[in-house]
Amino acid sequence: MSLQRVAITGGTHGNELTGVYLIKKWLRDPGPVTREGFETLLLHTNPEAIKACRRYIDRDLNRSFSMVDLAHPKSHYEAQRACEINTLLGPKGVDEPRVDFICDLHSTTSNMGLSLVVSNQSKLTWDAVRYLCAKEPALHVYRWQGDEEDAFVDSIAPHGFAIEVGAVPQGVLRSDLFFATERVVMHLLDFFEKVTHGTVIPETDREITVYDHVDLVDYPRDSDGEIDGMVHEKLQDHDYALLHKGDPIFRRLDGSEIVYNREVPLHALFVNEAAYYEKGFAMTLARKITL
Amino acid sequence: MSLQRVAITGGTHGNELTGVYLIKKWLRDPGPVTREGFETLLLHTNPEAIKACRRYIDRDLNRSFSMVDLAHPKSHYEAQRACEINTLLGPKGVDEPRVDFICDLHSTTSNMGLSLVVSNQSKLTWDAVRYLCAKEPALHVYRWQGDEEDAFVDSIAPHGFAIEVGAVPQGVLRSDLFFATERVVMHLLDFFEKVTHGTVIPETDREITVYDHVDLVDYPRDSDGEIDGMVHEKLQDHDYALLHKGDPIFRRLDGSEIVYNREVPLHALFVNEAAYYEKGFAMTLARKITL
Repeated sequence: MSLQRVAITGGTHGNELTGVYLIKKWLRDPGPVTREGFETLLLHTNPEAIKACRRYIDRDLNRSFSMVDLAHPKSHYEAQRACEINTLLGPKGVDEPRVDFICDLHSTTSNMGLSLVVSNQSKLTWDAVRYLCAKEPALHVYRWQGDEEDAFVDSIAPHGFAIEVGAVPQGVLRSDLFFATERVVMHLLDFFEKVTHGTVIPETDREITVYDHVDLVDYPRDSDGEIDGMVHEKLQDHDYALLHKGDPIFRRLDGSEIVYNREVPLHALFVNEAAYYEKGFAMTLARKITL
Repeated sequence: MSLQRVAITGGTHGNELTGVYLIKKWLRDPGPVTREGFETLLLHTNPEAIKACRRYIDRDLNRSFSMVDLAHPKSHYEAQRACEINTLLGPKGVDEPRVDFICDLHSTTSNMGLSLVVSNQSKLTWDAVRYLCAKEPALHVYRWQGDEEDAFVDSIAPHGFAIEVGAVPQGVLRSDLFFATERVVMHLLDFFEKVTHGTVIPETDREITVYDHVDLVDYPRDSDGEIDGMVHEKLQDHDYALLHKGDPIFRRLDGSEIVYNREVPLHALFVNEAAYYEKGFAMTLARKITL
């Protein structure tokens, strides 16, 4: 198939340094991302947030790409920046956008290991996912429908996903996760090379395990709506764990336990991610399926 | 000895949630901190930074208590707030300040476990340190002379120190470290009770191991002064490790290694703390001594 341009983006959240520094590294020496048959664009999506080492200046950029927001942008920084990015890499929804695929680099304080967060349904996207799972057996795949409509950076291209790695604190670079993320991106570019060369790619026929988004779970709160508890120490750091009815999931500040009380066992993901305190969720719940 | 008032402070850095939420908990139910023989004050030192979930608004509050800054405060938020706190808990350097002891609650993205950071030289301070080491064998003691003169929150009282726990990301509560910190504070208040009752405290005669501050080590940087490397994956998470000449300590973005090149072996502390990227150090070096 025709694949002319792909974009690797980082710094959508300015305090997620893995992507910020990978993009810096490749901008300085584009050798590893320069491939035959297609062009690779590199972009720091949120330069002001990177400068401030904050997730965002005015609003989460990775929730700013809905069609409505792009058509009627507010006056704040991320709304304006989303429109600029939409011009550079999109525009969203047209037949011939500037890039065919966006891979957006993220990190998380949750112990998500090496993960893909996929909202796009396209065949090319899922062929890439299958290929990466073959190359990186430790890779997890989370099919995400989160707190809002698909307004992620990668939603402005016809194909794409986000890479999420953790656990790494905001504002911190971890060598292990930096090079693991780089490895996944190299595999992805290998995959694009094969696609543009028309090579048969047997890895795309594999079955894969996918964590399919089901729900969001908020922290325990007191009568004023203030957070009144923490992720239970038995669940902390155990992203992808399967929760059964009665398993402890929170501990209130007073030490008492709160248990998982659903009849259906589900897997806990994004457990105790710093940025989700303000969004009001302590973890997401997902069903494990085979695709 | 006479000990009339102690202060437990938290949220000096607004994104270090362990202290923020412990203070909240005790403000709601002061039972555990209400002891016989002395008064316990509780204070959120940096309410605006807590609200914003940032380390500080304008400047690091925990570097704002030098005599010069308190005498000639600048107009920004933390300078003003330092003066307010100095009035509430100090003033620094007088014979009869409002509180006798300040225990300031911190957390770190470094894997420092349960640690005390002690700059004060007073006998009461070190008696308390010895007592806590007896009660909490996992406790580490770091005698700190850092990047500036002693301008910490606890420097405005005649006695005091900071509790530092990690690894925990900024903006995150960890149940294990929350309750471990609470346990140390309870031991400290037990100690004050014994002191005010004139009880003999045999724990204060113990020898203790102390990590004595020697130096700061910056990240590798490129010719523009930009960070060009990360803590080596073999050192990451290994705070208190003893470094020998030739041990890898950094990995540049290009993958090459940088080794420790001092003749004298020293221990690495505060390895890869998020807040120290802007201060320009990747770790501190300390000598292990017995006091």
